[in-house]
Amino acid sequence: MNHDAQASPADTAPEMSWFAWGDPDKATELDPGLRDLIARVLRTDPRAMPPVPEERVELPASRLDERLRAEFAGIVGTEHVRTDDPTRLRHSGGKSTPDLLARRAGEAVPAPDAVLFPADHDQVERLLALCSDEGVAVVPFGGGTSVVGGLTPLDGGLAAVVTMDLRRLNRLISLDRTSLTAVLEAGVRTPHAEAMLAEHGLTLGHMPQSYEYATIGGYAATRSSGQASAGYGRFEDMVVGMKAATPRGTLEAGGHPASAAGPDLRGLLVGSEGTLGVITEVAVRVRPRPEKVVDEAWSFPDHATGVDALRTLAQSDVRPTMARLSDETETFVNAALGGREAVPGCQAVLGFEGTEEEVEARARTVRATMEAVGGTLVGPDPVAHWRENRFNAPYLRDTLLSAGILAETLETAASWSDLLPLYRAVVAALTEALDDDESGVLVQCHVSHTYATGASLYFTVATGAGDDPAGRWGRAKRAASDAIVANGGTITHHHAVGTDHRPWMTRELGPLGAEVLRAAKAALDPRGVLNPGKLLPDA
Amino acid sequence: MNHDAQASPADTAPEMSWFAWGDPDKATELDPGLRDLIARVLRTDPRAMPPVPEERVELPASRLDERLRAEFAGIVGTEHVRTDDPTRLRHSGGKSTPDLLARRAGEAVPAPDAVLFPADHDQVERLLALCSDEGVAVVPFGGGTSVVGGLTPLDGGLAAVVTMDLRRLNRLISLDRTSLTAVLEAGVRTPHAEAMLAEHGLTLGHMPQSYEYATIGGYAATRSSGQASAGYGRFEDMVVGMKAATPRGTLEAGGHPASAAGPDLRGLLVGSEGTLGVITEVAVRVRPRPEKVVDEAWSFPDHATGVDALRTLAQSDVRPTMARLSDETETFVNAALGGREAVPGCQAVLGFEGTEEEVEARARTVRATMEAVGGTLVGPDPVAHWRENRFNAPYLRDTLLSAGILAETLETAASWSDLLPLYRAVVAALTEALDDDESGVLVQCHVSHTYATGASLYFTVATGAGDDPAGRWGRAKRAASDAIVANGGTITHHHAVGTDHRPWMTRELGPLGAEVLRAAKAALDPRGVLNPGKLLPDA
Repeated sequence: MNHDAQASPADTAPEMSWFAWGDPDKATELDPGLRDLIARVLRTDPRAMPPVPEERVELPASRLDERLRAEFAGIVGTEHVRTDDPTRLRHSGGKSTPDLLARRAGEAVPAPDAVLFPADHDQVERLLALCSDEGVAVVPFGGGTSVVGGLTPLDGGLAAVVTMDLRRLNRLISLDRTSLTAVLEAGVRTPHAEAMLAEHGLTLGHMPQSYEYATIGGYAATRSSGQASAGYGRFEDMVVGMKAATPRGTLEAGGHPASAAGPDLRGLLVGSEGTLGVITEVAVRVRPRPEKVVDEAWSFPDHATGVDALRTLAQSDVRPTMARLSDETETFVNAALGGREAVPGCQAVLGFEGTEEEVEARARTVRATMEAVGGTLVGPDPVAHWRENRFNAPYLRDTLLSAGILAETLETAASWSDLLPLYRAVVAALTEALDDDESGVLVQCHVSHTYATGASLYFTVATGAGDDPAGRWGRAKRAASDAIVANGGTITHHHAVGTDHRPWMTRELGPLGAEVLRAAKAALDPRGVLNPGKLLPDA
Repeated sequence: MNHDAQASPADTAPEMSWFAWGDPDKATELDPGLRDLIARVLRTDPRAMPPVPEERVELPASRLDERLRAEFAGIVGTEHVRTDDPTRLRHSGGKSTPDLLARRAGEAVPAPDAVLFPADHDQVERLLALCSDEGVAVVPFGGGTSVVGGLTPLDGGLAAVVTMDLRRLNRLISLDRTSLTAVLEAGVRTPHAEAMLAEHGLTLGHMPQSYEYATIGGYAATRSSGQASAGYGRFEDMVVGMKAATPRGTLEAGGHPASAAGPDLRGLLVGSEGTLGVITEVAVRVRPRPEKVVDEAWSFPDHATGVDALRTLAQSDVRPTMARLSDETETFVNAALGGREAVPGCQAVLGFEGTEEEVEARARTVRATMEAVGGTLVGPDPVAHWRENRFNAPYLRDTLLSAGILAETLETAASWSDLLPLYRAVVAALTEALDDDESGVLVQCHVSHTYATGASLYFTVATGAGDDPAGRWGRAKRAASDAIVANGGTITHHHAVGTDHRPWMTRELGPLGAEVLRAAKAALDPRGVLNPGKLLPDA
């Protein structure tokens, strides 16, 4: 095997803002056109809703005593055990709107008692054994991008809680060019992974909206799906093998191209969100970097026609690498944000990646399919605009939040048969919950990932924050989640469970399914120190 | 959803022979040409080794008492609780060479104390609850095609063991033509499933060698892979959702086209071989029946060039639906069996299925790829011969066994980097174990399933039975299995674990992985009645 361990180039992504998504230098002002649109559609005037200054944020005092600090330091080194408030604040949760509202208000923000920065699998495993012995809860932390409360430092009734930041696990451990697999450490962020793979002409092809910050381990732990999943697959489809540290030792899963040797333990680790172990290494399938990318936007007279077109593509043997379809509202808003004239109907963006000749042939075949099902070719421009802004929506959310506008997303997936009724039910539930005396509401949606058997729906909701923004959003989220599970949808297609979707998980897994997962957890984490309060409802 | 429950056409597959594979009417005599080939290659003369007459087979007496028989009958009806010897003999194991050798010799054949024929999920669940209460072991039985000892009626130290034959669970429960999914009961055999789907213009596309007998539930329970897996995927890739009965109640897994709602319980049920529950229903992805099939055989100057060609195809975006490559020995033997002139080098069979225009375009692209990597087009004839005989190898094995020749298969999968060294190691191990004073040995192999990251190897071994056929084969199987795991292979790519691969499973799963599975089993099957002695090594 041509496995070459390789030194890692520096990972230079900036630290994320403590109260907002991403790079603080990328924060933007509210565009006047958008201000007008909001006033008109939401019947509410933007108002300043700034975060409190960082020094006003109230964090609980660290409960880490000197003995335990010395034990941690003995494993990872003194400088890798942090209890200062800036570090604890930046590990006090993820990036959901409820997370951000709490931190921006600055009142009683939960915080880990310490943040640990292990260097490798062995240190992670020793830390977990120690935490289990001492009864200290552990929250694994990759890119910090959770939007479902997956990073909230809950102590689960234990004496303390530490967050384990995996950024130092950032190496490409090995690469097998013949078999097109790479072993990456869990803390590698996507741009860093792509840079290391690009040196060998390879790519992972995983491009979720969290791309700039999210990590390889986080993708595996949350069953992530990237924007080009039609061509590259979901992250779980890329996972050849995994290594996790648990309080009981090392658990490895998969590793062969295929096997019939009993149940697939990858199915247990993928999506376990740090409750069964800390994923430390992932062997992923990689691909040659595409020689050519062809982009095309298509329009459809209405949403149902567009959904049928995407279904036809997903069920055919010749498919695009990326396919997304906006509903009428999102098509209108996208045109307005892009400074383009609004057109009636719905717009889809398609992308094709591959070798020169193969991409052209594929695009030709798809073009014929799209025309046959009622599509009209628009051209590449809307896709170019989408590509430029594909990672920026979270920044816009922060800008809106500072202007007193809640803008949040939620998502699901269902069979093609259930998709449109589910779509209508969720739009109705969100509208019912949020269109009131305080504000109007805008609900837009796109089909973001397609499969032969169904697709995902990704909703964006904007409404005035009102007097109780957290309560307002909480009511809407519950109404939407109830509508999702009542109409054949999964509670989450790619955002994962965390704390926010936990109340719906017994229904999702069935009571016996939940019990099996609890039994697996008890075998790996007998003291229950791994990410308590996440994913699995208590019995 | 357009789910239409549908009455089931009769499943008319004949009962399998008690001492051989398949339909007794299809048994064949040894071809004189093959007799000559054997004498020459194996340095051994065929000799008659017939099975004992059925009435001479010694079965242990049934331990089922009248009270328990009445309890079973209360659930499934009196006529569906069978304790007669012919029924028990036909459920006394699977179709591995050790299974057949034992039954053909007729001495102390293990047998279930009763065979139960439940009609639906509810009856299965009630039977399991009763067996758990009474401490009776349960062996689920689909098509009876296991070649790894998965059906041996071991009682695991319990008071009795029953085999649960699922042939009455034979309905197409629902069909969603829009989403291209079908819900089939576990006992549906493949030709029956295909007949029901064909009425709607659909196909499953799963064609393993056991096709004529194997069942939908068995495929899921054993992580089966069909001959057209390059195009249709492994069976686990087709599973959208599953329903299983356990002693603790019903466990459902999956059901959505994709989800991030925690770990994927399908990963636990698929490959569980009846140790965690009895799979009763499977929702599968289906496809439109192909309009056109194009077959092409290709030849390569040597094995390594052929393997590189298959790797190039598996890693490209344009692939055949089926791709298999024989090594030099198998290429020679196939030509001899097919009455064709032997050509030097290795031969591959490729198949393309799809719509008229799509298939031609795909075959053209693949042709260019194959020529570029050193292949020479042979034409369709060898593929036609292969298709005609694709399900017949097990019959030939029985013919050979009756002539005193062991002919058995074993298989593995590994990364492309590991494939050729693994191949050489297994050939050497089998040759070392079997080439002796009693007989020579013939070892041939084909790459039967390809993936972007690796491929499977399927070995066929022929050797004289000698004085102790079971011991002779057992030594060779152990040597090959040790060579497989020592050289980066999985202990099984699609035959599953059963009793035969169980000794290698702790190494395959790791000790902690095995412990997690035991914990899951304890949650679902606290008395340990489900298929004891299979799959999972004891702690």
